[in-house]
Amino acid sequence: MGNKLIECVPNYSEGRDMQKVEQIVDCFRGKKGVKLLDYQTDPNHNRCVVTVIGEPDELRDAVVASFGKAVELIDMTKHEGQHPRMGAVDVVPFIPCRNTTVEEADAVAKEVAKIVGEKYGVPCFLYEASASAPHRENLAKIRKGQFEGMAEKMKDKELWAPDFGPETIHPTAGVSAVGARMPLVAFNVNLDTPNLEIASQIAKRIRHIGGGLRYVKAIGIMLDDRNLAQVSMNLTDFTKTSVYRAFELIKMEAKRYGVNVLESELVGLVPMQALVDCAEYYLQLASFGPMTFDADKQIMEIRLLEEE
Amino acid sequence: MGNKLIECVPNYSEGRDMQKVEQIVDCFRGKKGVKLLDYQTDPNHNRCVVTVIGEPDELRDAVVASFGKAVELIDMTKHEGQHPRMGAVDVVPFIPCRNTTVEEADAVAKEVAKIVGEKYGVPCFLYEASASAPHRENLAKIRKGQFEGMAEKMKDKELWAPDFGPETIHPTAGVSAVGARMPLVAFNVNLDTPNLEIASQIAKRIRHIGGGLRYVKAIGIMLDDRNLAQVSMNLTDFTKTSVYRAFELIKMEAKRYGVNVLESELVGLVPMQALVDCAEYYLQLASFGPMTFDADKQIMEIRLLEEE
Repeated sequence: MGNKLIECVPNYSEGRDMQKVEQIVDCFRGKKGVKLLDYQTDPNHNRCVVTVIGEPDELRDAVVASFGKAVELIDMTKHEGQHPRMGAVDVVPFIPCRNTTVEEADAVAKEVAKIVGEKYGVPCFLYEASASAPHRENLAKIRKGQFEGMAEKMKDKELWAPDFGPETIHPTAGVSAVGARMPLVAFNVNLDTPNLEIASQIAKRIRHIGGGLRYVKAIGIMLDDRNLAQVSMNLTDFTKTSVYRAFELIKMEAKRYGVNVLESELVGLVPMQALVDCAEYYLQLASFGPMTFDADKQIMEIRLLEEE
Repeated sequence: MGNKLIECVPNYSEGRDMQKVEQIVDCFRGKKGVKLLDYQTDPNHNRCVVTVIGEPDELRDAVVASFGKAVELIDMTKHEGQHPRMGAVDVVPFIPCRNTTVEEADAVAKEVAKIVGEKYGVPCFLYEASASAPHRENLAKIRKGQFEGMAEKMKDKELWAPDFGPETIHPTAGVSAVGARMPLVAFNVNLDTPNLEIASQIAKRIRHIGGGLRYVKAIGIMLDDRNLAQVSMNLTDFTKTSVYRAFELIKMEAKRYGVNVLESELVGLVPMQALVDCAEYYLQLASFGPMTFDADKQIMEIRLLEEE
């Protein structure tokens, strides 16, 4: 594995026929510079979500290959499922992972969208950080109308001409959204109270829209089985709003209710840097000077990922 | 790279003839399951220190090969250098790194010592966690007398019969110490005071021999260029005495002097778990329950190290 790594989480509109799913997922197996981390199918959604990591060029090629396979195997005119969808490859986010920026993820996203548009005739909309206009940043807005409504929607060329590929939908593969975004960190803090209102009030104060931290989305929820209230968060850019900052702010706000933090939890895959940032903060690790703590280089496991 | 990884830091008695050094180091290059992380030569010490990581069997074979090369190339009867030494391969510590215990490192150490004793006729003393008797745990005690005095020293068979290999020294390669130990974490805390006495007092209280933490060695030192006193530590088993515990104890003891902690620093390679432990503690990450924080599996970079 090289030094520059990007994560990709493509969503395919097939979650029932496992033979087809395996053929798509095979595009990520045994490829140099590409590593399949996970794939999950949901028959109700009739959808498959793949998590794969790779070096930019190799990842691009594998994603393009999977695109070709999905276009070949999936017929959206016959697709049924609970999850909203607009194409055989519904959405393809690229996420900076190691030694890469969101700009580099964006570059790969645009390459993939361009190739796919030309090679397979699938119109592609750039979204999130790759979006070409503000009204295209949000995936839900692009996908509104779904596969069945997309041909009509795209007649409004001013608003919905695709960024790459033909101006009309692919007859069986529909359209796709491709773009770059920062990794999400799902972080929950359980309060030592069964009072949901307290968790909701704290969530309102710490989240961006309520005057809180720039990259925090938060709601209060009830953990019924444990009779505890939880502040449930998505950190949308942990490099700017660190986990420890959200955590300490919750503790601070909880004080006005005399409520303590019982515990916290990180859900799903977490970039190591998100944890190292916390160790650096709490241990007051110096980040400059002759004895610099260059976390990445000093962590043994990371050295193992480097090429000699 | 597989899941079980052991680190080895062999010391060779050659630090001047770089052609010889390269031939020895080559034993760790291009080997499946083995990764050379670092090697440093010191002409004054006339010594080379290699840092390598690998799967147990592959690491064993590479270390044995390097042993053979060193025995072939190094003549201890002609060796000069400031660093104490007793053999062409002076000392070979094995350190558990990922998904391995000190017992597994010990098993590899014993295999290497046995093979080397038989194959190259180099007497081997097991030391540290592998030692066969308390008086052999400490490397300095084994090495006392150095290469030149070792033949005489080993005449006392009751005390100094080797654990493996012939009962007399190899004529040109001397003897070697091989053994397992836990990784050291070098951790320093800088105090907001130029008073060395305060750092020394704190060091005395937090270290094992002074009634402090079991796996902490500590001294107070003066950083003259910054006019700051530092508590300088070696954590000899961070899995039992965590970095955060040493850190918090220093802050606690510093309070009696009204002194604050200015910053801290980790020196050299650090196992990731040492940092993750700190993030877990300070963020109060729950380590049980249905939403378990299984740090290792959740850290993206670690998933990259796993075999599919």
